[in-house]
Order: sequence, then C-alpha cells, then structure tokens
Amino acid sequence: MIEVIALDGDDTLWHSEHLFVDTQERFRDLVRPHARLGDAALDERLVEVERRNLPLFGYGVKAFTLSLIETAIELTDGRIPGRDLQAVLDLGKLLMDHPVELLEGVREAVDALTDTYRVMVITKGDLLHQETKVARSDLAELFWRVEIVSEKDEATYLRILDRHGIDPAHFVMVGNSVRSDVLPVLAIGGRAIHVPYSVTWALEHADTDPEVHDFPVLESLAQLPACIDVLQAGA
Amino acid sequence: MIEVIALDGDDTLWHSEHLFVDTQERFRDLVRPHARLGDAALDERLVEVERRNLPLFGYGVKAFTLSLIETAIELTDGRIPGRDLQAVLDLGKLLMDHPVELLEGVREAVDALTDTYRVMVITKGDLLHQETKVARSDLAELFWRVEIVSEKDEATYLRILDRHGIDPAHFVMVGNSVRSDVLPVLAIGGRAIHVPYSVTWALEHADTDPEVHDFPVLESLAQLPACIDVLQAGA
Repeated sequence: MIEVIALDGDDTLWHSEHLFVDTQERFRDLVRPHARLGDAALDERLVEVERRNLPLFGYGVKAFTLSLIETAIELTDGRIPGRDLQAVLDLGKLLMDHPVELLEGVREAVDALTDTYRVMVITKGDLLHQETKVARSDLAELFWRVEIVSEKDEATYLRILDRHGIDPAHFVMVGNSVRSDVLPVLAIGGRAIHVPYSVTWALEHADTDPEVHDFPVLESLAQLPACIDVLQAGA
Repeated sequence: MIEVIALDGDDTLWHSEHLFVDTQERFRDLVRPHARLGDAALDERLVEVERRNLPLFGYGVKAFTLSLIETAIELTDGRIPGRDLQAVLDLGKLLMDHPVELLEGVREAVDALTDTYRVMVITKGDLLHQETKVARSDLAELFWRVEIVSEKDEATYLRILDRHGIDPAHFVMVGNSVRSDVLPVLAIGGRAIHVPYSVTWALEHADTDPEVHDFPVLESLAQLPACIDVLQAGA
C-alpha cells in the first residue's frame, strides 16, 4: 500500500539545471577574454572546483556562485578584473532570483495525487532559496510536508521517514536524479520512480545495473498518477 | 508546565560571532591597501551590503562570504586584484571549517536538562554548516530534534511547534538574540530566556521595552537549569 509520495524539487517540479547551463555560458563569456584555455577546459575546471568545494559548501546557488568566482580567479591567474568578478557574482544573484517555471503537467499531477495520497517535497540546496521556490511554485498548499536537506543519502531518507512515522514500504520517491532520488530510497526498502530531465549535472551522474536496480522511468510527471495506480495495483 | 526547551546554536551553544569579527579584521587588512576609505567606513559598507543581500542570500557563512567579496569590489572600484579576492573567499572557507568551541557550562547544562525535558536546537544559517556544527559539538545525541531554519520569526516558531505537536505554553526558547530567540516566541505565547553573548551582529540588534517585554536574562547557560526550575515552580 502506497501512502506517501515524495517529489524532488529542482528539475522534477520546476526547471533548474538549464538555468545553470545558461549561467555557465555567460560565465564563459566573462572569463574567456582573460583566460588562456578553451571552453571545454573551462567547464572541466569548474566541475573540479565544485567537486572540491562540495564537502564544505554543500549544494545550491550560493555554493555554485562561490565556485564560479574561484574558478574565474584560478583560470585567469588572478588577472580577471574586479568588475568582471562582480558580474560573475551578479549571475549568481540572477539565478537565485529567477522565477519558478513548473515543468509540464506538474500541477495537474500533484493535484490528482493529493486526492488519495499525502504528497511531500524532499529537495536539496540552499534553505532559503528552496523555500522561496516552493512558495513561488504556487503548489505549497498542496504539500503535506516540505523537507529541505543538505544531502539525499540513505541516512537522510531514514531520518525523514522516522520523523514523520512513514513505513518505507508505503513510501515512493519521485525525481530526476538516479543518484539522489532513486538508489538511496531503493536501498532502504522504499520504492522510487525516475523522471529524467533533459540535462543532468556532472555531479549527479550515477551508474546503474539493470540486473540489480529495477524502477519505473517516466517521460514526464503527467504520467505519474497512472504509474502510481499500477504500483498500487501490484502492491 | 514546561516540557520542551529549545536552544539556539550560534553564540548560545558555541562561539560564532567573535569568529566573524576576527574574519572582518583580516578582511580589512586585505582591502585597506586598495581602498580610499578608513576602517569605520569599510565596516559600515559591509553591513550595508549584508543588509541589501539578506532577502536574497539569507543567513550563514556562504552569504557572508559573497557579501565580503562584493564589498571588497565596491570599496576598491574593482581595483582589488584577483589573488586578494581569492584570499577573501578563503577567509570564508576557514570560517566554515572552524572547529566548534562550546561556550562554558553548555555540556553540563544540556546534560542536566535532558533528564527532565525534551531539549531541541533551533538555529538559523547554512543548512550543511549548521548540521556540521551540531555533529562537531558532540551534543547531537542529547537533542530530541534539530531544526535549521532560514528565519526565526513568529511564523517559523508556529510551524515548528505545530509540526512537533508542542503547546506554546509548554515551550521555552533560550538564546543570545532578543530579536530572533526572545520576541517572536513571547509573541506566540511561549516563554523565552535571554543569554547575551559578548558581541551582537549589527543585523540582530533589537529594541525592547521593559514595560512590555519581561523575560529572564542569564549570564551563561550554566544558570539555565536553575532558571528553568524557578519558571517551573511558578508555572
């Protein structure tokens, strides 16, 4: 019996990664004139810096902005002028203040599911920014709970389920990241549904083994209510 | 009847603001050679930038670091070299990675209180950084719940009390900030105890009217168990 459906936020409910990709493009335009490297090397260095800073900074736009600034200084041996670094910082601000655009079919799917299930959000990133996005999504009143977490691993899911008294057998997680939304939930005995987004951030890539990991993959959240019906029928 | 005691984190359980003050001193040393303003004007500009960025960035060290970088660029009309901006960013990293030093008497007070009460933490700032500090405090196992929030206002306290089924009449908040730990809790019908820290951040200053606001003020958390006994006896 499924009782609780948890939805990821970024790239599951609303667009996010393509905004980071756009930001990165503008970042390259700012850094290119002062750097001696091509665009591919520039992107590679950014991912390296993000990976290095992740344990200290965590996820979210503020962490990303600090890593952009650090990458810009490193790649230009400090030659990038202050005004261009302010422009980099302003890219981060734009990203933080960007309107929330729901993915297609999200409102209808959430609306339909709340008739029968407790629907919650489990999302990671900056606390204030994620809260702001939930508020701007116009979906807040439909959610039973909103959990903003610093990492989506098995320990986090166990803590959330324990806190809300949810049996893993009655829990389904839905999201675009196999690494964060699917694998840790399967590992603790819950179910998971993968809804890929058109772009996946380098640090979210995951290897899966079809012999071991078996989970539904949907094209859009519009297919979620029907998929839940099928799971429920088979449960 | 008091049932739940909530403790603030920064400058209530562990030292924090004096680390920001030290960081700001080293920040001035980095910016001074490139700026045309004195130290007082420099500090003033930083508070202005922090206040301006607060609605977008929220609280915490990442927000502070971004505001330091922005202030350094503004104050020097972009003349500060990239390597010095990296040094500013590194100040933020040091702050994020600083060991947790408990205030005097904290462990004993928390230990004593958990015999009788459910003791929780309600703290604001960066999600990952606050989680790390709770873990590094060696107090985590004593806490019933840890709530990390983006703002400490009446709505936040109401949400937390509701989520955990706590009656405001059975709730006491303890912290160093009159603005964040005392006034909003009194406003929702809870009780609050003020334990001032030696330094208060400019954006945490609050005006109180002794005719309207009546709350105990302690010199240190060591006095908390006795103060709770007195409140309980009078309850």
